[in-house]
Amino acid sequence: MSDKGERGLIDWIRGQKKSCKSALVNIGIGDDLAGLRIGDEQLLYGCDQVLDGVHFRLNDCGAKAAGRKALARNLSDVAAMAAVPVVAVASVALPENMATKQAQEIVSGMNELAEEFNCPVIGGDLGSWTGALAISVSVLAKGAGLEPVKRSGAKEGDAIMVTGELGGSILGKHLVFKPLVKEARALAEQIKLHAMIDVSDGLAVDLHHITNESKCGAEIRAEKIPVSEAAKKLGPEPLEHSLADGEDYELLFTLSEKEVHKAQSILGSLGVKVSHIGRIIKQGVILTDENGNQRELSATGFEHFVKKAQSRKRNG
Amino acid sequence: MSDKGERGLIDWIRGQKKSCKSALVNIGIGDDLAGLRIGDEQLLYGCDQVLDGVHFRLNDCGAKAAGRKALARNLSDVAAMAAVPVVAVASVALPENMATKQAQEIVSGMNELAEEFNCPVIGGDLGSWTGALAISVSVLAKGAGLEPVKRSGAKEGDAIMVTGELGGSILGKHLVFKPLVKEARALAEQIKLHAMIDVSDGLAVDLHHITNESKCGAEIRAEKIPVSEAAKKLGPEPLEHSLADGEDYELLFTLSEKEVHKAQSILGSLGVKVSHIGRIIKQGVILTDENGNQRELSATGFEHFVKKAQSRKRNG
Repeated sequence: MSDKGERGLIDWIRGQKKSCKSALVNIGIGDDLAGLRIGDEQLLYGCDQVLDGVHFRLNDCGAKAAGRKALARNLSDVAAMAAVPVVAVASVALPENMATKQAQEIVSGMNELAEEFNCPVIGGDLGSWTGALAISVSVLAKGAGLEPVKRSGAKEGDAIMVTGELGGSILGKHLVFKPLVKEARALAEQIKLHAMIDVSDGLAVDLHHITNESKCGAEIRAEKIPVSEAAKKLGPEPLEHSLADGEDYELLFTLSEKEVHKAQSILGSLGVKVSHIGRIIKQGVILTDENGNQRELSATGFEHFVKKAQSRKRNG
Repeated sequence: MSDKGERGLIDWIRGQKKSCKSALVNIGIGDDLAGLRIGDEQLLYGCDQVLDGVHFRLNDCGAKAAGRKALARNLSDVAAMAAVPVVAVASVALPENMATKQAQEIVSGMNELAEEFNCPVIGGDLGSWTGALAISVSVLAKGAGLEPVKRSGAKEGDAIMVTGELGGSILGKHLVFKPLVKEARALAEQIKLHAMIDVSDGLAVDLHHITNESKCGAEIRAEKIPVSEAAKKLGPEPLEHSLADGEDYELLFTLSEKEVHKAQSILGSLGVKVSHIGRIIKQGVILTDENGNQRELSATGFEHFVKKAQSRKRNG
């Protein structure tokens, strides 16, 4: 199945009448996590997998980093909703020749992060097979007094902001990134965030996720995009890497223009860089350069860095 | 990793101090599902995976059956706790050459069962890779007014009962079984069940799960074990298949001797066969035959039917 096929499949799933009919569910397929109400509590619920050869290379990074990343991706989804992680469970498909010590390292990598984020892994399923290492983690989070920040709330005129720096995560950050749970929470406690997502597919794709769900457009300014040193190392077009690489796990959010300084101040006090990169417009997703030239930004970005790293092509 | 290695790994995980420290968690690793309290509600939470070549063979059963089974295994865990399923999420690792139609069938298989059990699949993660099909489903369930039935509550003198018939599930039942959610609920609403588990690893192993968690022993009578027709078809030792094959997804439970007739009556009215196969004793897990000969029943059973089907050996 191609990347385009995957996206088409998700659209097909969302079109199925049989999904999402529980009265408890108030955030369905199409956000970083699904949402449901249990009693007075708003819960957030989802899962994310990491696959050897796609999201990590076991022989290069080791089992501990793979286990850590499996949970970290989920915690980044929790951050994207400005929620508080509660517990996680994990399914691990172990290669049949894997040594016990390596399998333990997967668990250790997960548990160290679980400890740090107070989100214990309380159950799961282990099985071995002839295939490569595959880890799926599911996470349960709670609103804890705040409404979850969805992808769908961006409003025309909103400022678009992104934390950290983007691009080149394949050089290391995709394995060691810190989920911005505390940072998202600090923002949402003090500011009305309109829309938020974590940058996993790449700035271009994830911006499209926000505009599609919010039924609006966006204009971002090339010179404002925080291009990482890693992106610059990767070749002659660092901006393209910042737009398309993905796996940055930074927070991309929109809010009223008048809240921009407050957001900068909150994140600054936490030692986190934030860039004001553009604004929400009526329609279209546009990249404007320093000279005022505009081009439409297509919904392309990270899906499978292995293929991209090998062939520099997408949708392979 | 060998099957013995898998079980050792689970023991190792349970021994890790870093797991299960959330104050919300009241059922940790070692039951069919983990449990946590959110407000007034008792939630149950877990995940289970199905892997091509281990839990199904895609080329034989098709994608729809694989998707169905992925959710069905989780619903069987919900049944084992006598809980009510609420929502599920799914991670699917798709072979890169899989046709879109096949991928849709995975979702259809899952959604049809989700509809039947009022447990919508509200989110997930799709990715393609060079590996075989792997599906991990996580389920969230609720106590809905009943305390979950754990593995750990069996008491000396309890009757041991099992629904349906056991053995030979590889001939078809492992793909088409119906999770006994309604049946477990009916029992738990009217009877104090002491311990319960679904028979996924095989009667022998799953009985050991109950005795280990409950710190007791069990004696079962060979002639009382409901040997399925499928087990009889498989060869000269059908009883061995009933003890060891697994993937029956029947309910194995213990309760006070004086409640046996009531349990039979409740399940009978639902059209479900139930057998009174033995009793909980102080220690040891013993199989007694018609002539009074006893043998110790070891904790062996289903782990990977592919290997067993090929070599007729266990723990390969």
